[in-house]
Amino acid sequence: MTDTDFDVLAIGDAVVDVIAPADEALLAEVGVPKGSMRTIDWEEAQQLYARMGPAQETSGGSAANSMAGIAALGGRAAFIGQIGSDQLGTIFAHDIRAQGVAFDTPALTEDITTGRCLILVTPDAQRTMNTYRGASEHLSVDGVDADQIARATIVYLEAYLWDHAPPRAAMKHAADLAHKAGRPVAFTLSDIACIDRHRPDFRALLESGRVDILFGNEEEARALAGRTDLDEAVAELGEHVDLCVITRGEHGALAAQGGATITVSAVRPRAIVDTTGAGDLFAAGFLASHARGRPLETSLMLGARTAAEVIADYGARPLGKLSHLVDD
Amino acid sequence: MTDTDFDVLAIGDAVVDVIAPADEALLAEVGVPKGSMRTIDWEEAQQLYARMGPAQETSGGSAANSMAGIAALGGRAAFIGQIGSDQLGTIFAHDIRAQGVAFDTPALTEDITTGRCLILVTPDAQRTMNTYRGASEHLSVDGVDADQIARATIVYLEAYLWDHAPPRAAMKHAADLAHKAGRPVAFTLSDIACIDRHRPDFRALLESGRVDILFGNEEEARALAGRTDLDEAVAELGEHVDLCVITRGEHGALAAQGGATITVSAVRPRAIVDTTGAGDLFAAGFLASHARGRPLETSLMLGARTAAEVIADYGARPLGKLSHLVDD
Repeated sequence: MTDTDFDVLAIGDAVVDVIAPADEALLAEVGVPKGSMRTIDWEEAQQLYARMGPAQETSGGSAANSMAGIAALGGRAAFIGQIGSDQLGTIFAHDIRAQGVAFDTPALTEDITTGRCLILVTPDAQRTMNTYRGASEHLSVDGVDADQIARATIVYLEAYLWDHAPPRAAMKHAADLAHKAGRPVAFTLSDIACIDRHRPDFRALLESGRVDILFGNEEEARALAGRTDLDEAVAELGEHVDLCVITRGEHGALAAQGGATITVSAVRPRAIVDTTGAGDLFAAGFLASHARGRPLETSLMLGARTAAEVIADYGARPLGKLSHLVDD
Repeated sequence: MTDTDFDVLAIGDAVVDVIAPADEALLAEVGVPKGSMRTIDWEEAQQLYARMGPAQETSGGSAANSMAGIAALGGRAAFIGQIGSDQLGTIFAHDIRAQGVAFDTPALTEDITTGRCLILVTPDAQRTMNTYRGASEHLSVDGVDADQIARATIVYLEAYLWDHAPPRAAMKHAADLAHKAGRPVAFTLSDIACIDRHRPDFRALLESGRVDILFGNEEEARALAGRTDLDEAVAELGEHVDLCVITRGEHGALAAQGGATITVSAVRPRAIVDTTGAGDLFAAGFLASHARGRPLETSLMLGARTAAEVIADYGARPLGKLSHLVDD
């Protein structure tokens, strides 16, 4: 699988994170459950921003964070996502390219702003995320470069983008292009609220055979399968996909393929500073290794190590190179 | 001096800091001396940004940082600075207002971008600053609210803004308005390179009687006075201003007034994480106390404590409230 230019090409949200400290009282006033992730409209984004404290901006997006992680691990990553022709779009494009990820999706020419995720960090270090998706909702099949898809070993899709028709069509189109080129398609469930909104659609997606590798945490796997027992849920999902990769927080992770299940323990982080991005970076480590044809256990281990690394630093993207985590 | 609405009103650069790690090799290639501060044009800003790693954006500007510090100390601060009608301008305005600083300068209606400071952080934690001033250069007398000036106990001006005629005129206008209202004017020397460019002009400014309180570090004081001995330099500058406040890094600070000099030791920070903003926050502490008519020694002490606080955290603005530092 190495006669390609990219180990992984991802399609996902192109957003800039706007991060500010917040107290519990603000969460209560705004009426957002702590630790939750939700999408908001422009008006609510303006209102919430006006109530937030002095903030700090960094590029984000779940699949984009994963591609940044693959690049930091020394892998070859590409990203497709929709930015606007504005300063936040320039920031997003700069940061992902500066990390070494190929990013060539043209900015929108219309006057539509780049997405942003307003993140409230409470004193207990929990993050409550409020995403105004902006330009990301306007990613369409036109933004999918067929040639680039064919040059990637794995195509990775993000459930967060499922809410709107144009990016949904773009992701299905990308999956079909990948399969035509004989490449596997990976899909990450992103978030339990995503599954609540789109369960029948996600089930149909799996049943259509468009997904080969399914990523999720245990709660998401149970919700999508409609089973309370994790083993049963994984077995059920395994009927529709070749490979299930499930993270279990401090209990480690597992990969299920062809009826067999491989598990690894979690790697203890140097420090627990900020768990944001742990799932994104687990996927980065797993995919970077899996795309190079390594055994599942090796790939799970690299996922666990990479997740531990991002937990030990502030933010959802690696602060430096991570290639020392790769064994070979 | 408390029959006012603001303890301090500052006029200064309105910029967003763009901060990225960098290695020594990048500094050498770009040809910038480590730890230096310089202004760059648009083309150079684009070229340098393209070579910088993934970055993080936070609001900055020396005098703006000082006003943020005063607000964090529980003081009443206002800021006048020029932003553009763009996302960086929105970020700057949001952050300074969210900190509790009054900021009402209308954004430019022309298509001129908000300024930004590209900051390269080398592994030894030194910061090399490259400022594209943008809209800040366009602050004019129109941006100076005469009523607001008259409502401030002290007006604080920043030498960084001296390079261009419109903000220079705005600052002189503000000084005249303050004096007309019977309020003192403070001026910070900002940077040794500023003095190199404008020494005759700064001398003329002092000799014109427009400055009552002069802020600087010892190197700046010596350069402006043209004396190698600090005591002689302070004595010389004291002939033109009522009060000289000089910081001496780890050797503490001094205030000279009417031939008498008061010194304080530096306050040992909890940790030395990032010395950026130490001078800005020293000025914040001093001014917050001095504006309330406290003794010079008390004001120097609060300056030293506030500087120590910002040194112990990453960034040039306080991360939370600092009112616990105030004795009364």
